[in-house]
Amino acid sequence: MVVVMSPDATDEDVAHVVERVESVGGEAFVSRGVVRTIIGLVGDIDSFHDLNLRALRGVADVHRISDPYKLVSRQHHADRSTVWVGQAGRRVPIGPETFTFMAGPCAVESAEQTLEAARMAQAAGATILRGGAYKPRTSPYAFQGLGVRGLEILADVREATGMPVVTEIVDARDVDVVAEHADMLQVGTRNMANFGLLQAVGESGKPVLLKRGMTATIEEWLMAAEYIAQRGNLDVVLCERGIRTFEPATRNTLDISAVPVVQATSHLPVIIDPSHAAGRKDLVVPLSRAGIAVGADGVIVDVHPEPENALCDGPQALLGDELRDLAQAVRDLPAMVGRAGSGERTGGSR
Amino acid sequence: MVVVMSPDATDEDVAHVVERVESVGGEAFVSRGVVRTIIGLVGDIDSFHDLNLRALRGVADVHRISDPYKLVSRQHHADRSTVWVGQAGRRVPIGPETFTFMAGPCAVESAEQTLEAARMAQAAGATILRGGAYKPRTSPYAFQGLGVRGLEILADVREATGMPVVTEIVDARDVDVVAEHADMLQVGTRNMANFGLLQAVGESGKPVLLKRGMTATIEEWLMAAEYIAQRGNLDVVLCERGIRTFEPATRNTLDISAVPVVQATSHLPVIIDPSHAAGRKDLVVPLSRAGIAVGADGVIVDVHPEPENALCDGPQALLGDELRDLAQAVRDLPAMVGRAGSGERTGGSR
Amino acid sequence: MVVVMSPDATDEDVAHVVERVESVGGEAFVSRGVVRTIIGLVGDIDSFHDLNLRALRGVADVHRISDPYKLVSRQHHADRSTVWVGQAGRRVPIGPETFTFMAGPCAVESAEQTLEAARMAQAAGATILRGGAYKPRTSPYAFQGLGVRGLEILADVREATGMPVVTEIVDARDVDVVAEHADMLQVGTRNMANFGLLQAVGESGKPVLLKRGMTATIEEWLMAAEYIAQRGNLDVVLCERGIRTFEPATRNTLDISAVPVVQATSHLPVIIDPSHAAGRKDLVVPLSRAGIAVGADGVIVDVHPEPENALCDGPQALLGDELRDLAQAVRDLPAMVGRAGSGERTGGSR
Amino acid sequence: MVVVMSPDATDEDVAHVVERVESVGGEAFVSRGVVRTIIGLVGDIDSFHDLNLRALRGVADVHRISDPYKLVSRQHHADRSTVWVGQAGRRVPIGPETFTFMAGPCAVESAEQTLEAARMAQAAGATILRGGAYKPRTSPYAFQGLGVRGLEILADVREATGMPVVTEIVDARDVDVVAEHADMLQVGTRNMANFGLLQAVGESGKPVLLKRGMTATIEEWLMAAEYIAQRGNLDVVLCERGIRTFEPATRNTLDISAVPVVQATSHLPVIIDPSHAAGRKDLVVPLSRAGIAVGADGVIVDVHPEPENALCDGPQALLGDELRDLAQAVRDLPAMVGRAGSGERTGGSR
Repeated sequence: MVVVMSPDATDEDVAHVVERVESVGGEAFVSRGVVRTIIGLVGDIDSFHDLNLRALRGVADVHRISDPYKLVSRQHHADRSTVWVGQAGRRVPIGPETFTFMAGPCAVESAEQTLEAARMAQAAGATILRGGAYKPRTSPYAFQGLGVRGLEILADVREATGMPVVTEIVDARDVDVVAEHADMLQVGTRNMANFGLLQAVGESGKPVLLKRGMTATIEEWLMAAEYIAQRGNLDVVLCERGIRTFEPATRNTLDISAVPVVQATSHLPVIIDPSHAAGRKDLVVPLSRAGIAVGADGVIVDVHPEPENALCDGPQALLGDELRDLAQAVRDLPAMVGRAGSGERTGGSR
Repeated sequence: MVVVMSPDATDEDVAHVVERVESVGGEAFVSRGVVRTIIGLVGDIDSFHDLNLRALRGVADVHRISDPYKLVSRQHHADRSTVWVGQAGRRVPIGPETFTFMAGPCAVESAEQTLEAARMAQAAGATILRGGAYKPRTSPYAFQGLGVRGLEILADVREATGMPVVTEIVDARDVDVVAEHADMLQVGTRNMANFGLLQAVGESGKPVLLKRGMTATIEEWLMAAEYIAQRGNLDVVLCERGIRTFEPATRNTLDISAVPVVQATSHLPVIIDPSHAAGRKDLVVPLSRAGIAVGADGVIVDVHPEPENALCDGPQALLGDELRDLAQAVRDLPAMVGRAGSGERTGGSR
Repeated sequence: MVVVMSPDATDEDVAHVVERVESVGGEAFVSRGVVRTIIGLVGDIDSFHDLNLRALRGVADVHRISDPYKLVSRQHHADRSTVWVGQAGRRVPIGPETFTFMAGPCAVESAEQTLEAARMAQAAGATILRGGAYKPRTSPYAFQGLGVRGLEILADVREATGMPVVTEIVDARDVDVVAEHADMLQVGTRNMANFGLLQAVGESGKPVLLKRGMTATIEEWLMAAEYIAQRGNLDVVLCERGIRTFEPATRNTLDISAVPVVQATSHLPVIIDPSHAAGRKDLVVPLSRAGIAVGADGVIVDVHPEPENALCDGPQALLGDELRDLAQAVRDLPAMVGRAGSGERTGGSR
Repeated sequence: MVVVMSPDATDEDVAHVVERVESVGGEAFVSRGVVRTIIGLVGDIDSFHDLNLRALRGVADVHRISDPYKLVSRQHHADRSTVWVGQAGRRVPIGPETFTFMAGPCAVESAEQTLEAARMAQAAGATILRGGAYKPRTSPYAFQGLGVRGLEILADVREATGMPVVTEIVDARDVDVVAEHADMLQVGTRNMANFGLLQAVGESGKPVLLKRGMTATIEEWLMAAEYIAQRGNLDVVLCERGIRTFEPATRNTLDISAVPVVQATSHLPVIIDPSHAAGRKDLVVPLSRAGIAVGADGVIVDVHPEPENALCDGPQALLGDELRDLAQAVRDLPAMVGRAGSGERTGGSR
């Protein structure tokens, strides 16, 4: 941590900072410049936070130097992690050696629609089924999901297809019932900073798919993962799904750079969601290709047997030719970045 | 609602759109241009949403024309509302005729600190006490608030000072205990899209202070208010607290225009929070002045008897001279926009 | 300047940084932490820039500590400056003691329209006339301005009204002709980083109105002012006109905080442009009030005798009641922040 | 174009809009809804713009439906274009069938450094040399480029290597001298809206590399290309180089989606610049791979023989292993999206 003094700070101001740093067992190195003095702090960073150094007289700024997350950092866990999803005999890995294709309908609408979408997804190479039973909708007048009935449908479709299920959880009070029916709990973009929910999924015993808040920095996203990890759950997969920018051509701007940035600093797997990032069907295949090429550990996309009648986000759901193109991409392209393609090496072997 | 067809849409594509619109009881007006055809829809907008028109063949775009919120709109409620906070005999209004000054510590740390901060706030003209018992923190290693003990302190300080209390709620499971101790429930910026929490405060029977999500559009913010209103609670006060932009000089960018924009479209009161917007003590007074001048219905600021030792956001808490300047501003400036100054006309009279 | 080494940097890497810093006459203070080493640099910051420290092995990051601008900084020029606009006998001040109201049509369309707009503006208290002869338009098919003929009209209207004229310059090749006809040269938002143009106006001998780039940070804006100052021209007035954000309700988001932030760090005057920020007529008066209250040194707005027939930005041009409200605001409100109102103390007295 | 009337618009207001539309030869289709009336306009869009419809009484909003650009649109030019760079015998194509790798130093510093960088680039498969003689720098105190001397060096290196040269132009007054020495003129991100410069390069007779403004929408970027095209020059290559967002981990956020979005709407080639987008060396290779996979027509990167001593942007210049990885990517990966790899099919054959 570095404390920058203002140009008019006095010697006493500097001494006061040093004294407070030392009072919690830290060391303070003072560099006096022509215009400003800067003070480098060495010691336990958490104890420095409590000092409220920014509020001291003569302090112009405080720069944090090291990363604030610990459990999810590569610093003490250099190897990238693999997260396994599903029950014994059907485990699917998400990690550095494989490429995982997850697909399904945005919302579970009926048993038939969900099963049909799952069959489409599986035929295209998907090994994990996505589907929403609880939908966080901007409008209280929009379809909010089938709830428990949706979870039951997902569990039935898992039995029929053998695909582990990931589904969104929007309320900490639902953790038990969702964990009972699903194999992986998704925390959506609107709930990335819902810290109570993060702690609840951290105690659920299930792997978590943590979507990036649409306006969260990468550091904030990793701190959200730290909340989950701190409750004892390190089975967290990060999902980049687009950030909010000024560009209106796409619903959000897929921050493709986030993938290598996260991989450089955290050991957790990271996948991309091109469907929700773009909100446009015609971009799903090119963005999926870009995600594979940049080194993502997987992709999650919307498919729907009848996009025209979808109750949620039909315009971005794949069908027919596009799905065939995507199937080819997830099968063939991972090899170019040294991975097994989707469906080639699924689980049970753990 | 307007449907824009792509340049290569066929007559059949157009006919199909018209047919679907008519199938739910709507009317479709077709305008054929040289390059494109556009179709104006008249009827029940909610039924059109279910049609998933964007997924139809030949449809390039769908423009929503009218506002998606209803209960919080001025359309059927032209007069701006006043929300009253506090129990009988101590009610404080927030609305178009008054200017309300709310102040207190960011976090409740102890009975002494809270009482002292409340006295400072009251002396400066504040009529509602703010203070956090549950703190949503980006880091799981940061101070998370005193919880129920904090609520008890707030209730005690209310007794001592007569100031109604507003405090943040971060988990739907805490609604009862918070509503029991506080006079107004605050939904923070990180929870603006936590729809379960919005519904819970909507059923609490208490007025709600709804902060804008730091990356929410004004429309999304009003839709969040609609979630609360839809559960029968129209006592919602909106709070602009800065949005996330590329400018690093301030923690967030106070969107001062949001005040008149909201007032033009919604009947709910709207206040500003300059402390959390700027994250800098030196901007709190000028931004408060700007808020009064632009027509806000109130301001909420951080004060702390010893900012240096604050457990949360000390650098932005006012003290001494700044607090005196603010006291003068909230007392004298509201008159220039045709309002009573803070403290001049407080409650009980309802 | 502070150099942060990566956790795996070696002693040699640290020594190499120190050596390079010392090679240009700087001093390097090394603070070795548990995880990282940081190096504080003391000396001539420009010489450090040339070292390309970020490219050295083991360097994780380089933090600049002091401001990169010099001539426009308050550091060696603590008093805030006043810029005078206009010829002898008609000089109008823009600075800390006065409040200056500038108004006129977005584009000069004809002698009649310009004169009529100027009369409206003057009646409302404006003391400087704005009007565009060269219009930077996003579309090559839009009205691009009358050019030299527009400049002549502006000069004629100045004669008729006595108001000094500010007009935009979009091409360095036009500096002479614009400087010949106008009293102040405006550099627009799209040209804030057109460094050749900045240097040209820096050599023009005329005061400059420098609009903030719609996506420029405050620091970049001050560096643009530094370009002008470096050519010997310190008569620069900064103009905040809204930044690009995700909020669609306004054309841009007026960054009202920029006014006190600039005033804390630079001695140059700073005004606001609510017309172009909002792009909505109904926000011009409330935002002007906010600008006065926050401490801006002036305001510049669009007026047009017939907004319906304006060739440029008619929807934001004031007329009638709104203009009367604005006239009252610029006359009465400056007193509340300790200034003379617009029109009360105009020039010649220098 | 669609005109949306406000809820309180009268029949006269509607009639007035219709009348004005018809006065310029357009047709107006009126759809009366329960709450609002909308009016679809058919006819010449440019004539509608002049009507200033937004300023009419009762008009709430005006939605533009069709794209504002013409010459660069795919609407009347469905096939994607190929732009050829270089003189007879050395022409290099940029277009839909090939993948073009452009590389060189950010700034031309000396003959030796430029030649060495060009040799490095060529060995890695680059077929066009980039290098800056005029540098637009945020600080007036930073290295501004060698100017004409830099152009001469570039021309010499072209002779030595056979690589056509692309270089930035920052001032319309330099068009002749730059066009005399270089094969392609680059308009940088800060000048994308410098309309005088766009017109000047439009008349230069040379192909143009048009970088996206760091805060320009895709539509604004295409309008900038339209400015060039309108002066008779359709040899424009677009370059996505990152947009400004709130994310600090990268200098800008590479908007990878812009590539397929542009290709869907414009016939012009589009490439990416990962060096300036990320500002980090470690992201150049993964982002280049992503660019190839998403379907970009080329990539432009910084290389420097001694990044440590670079006068400009050393931290992002490739060297050694990274350059080898990139060489492999640009050679092998284009095949996966149906293209020839860089260097496989270069010029002269036109």
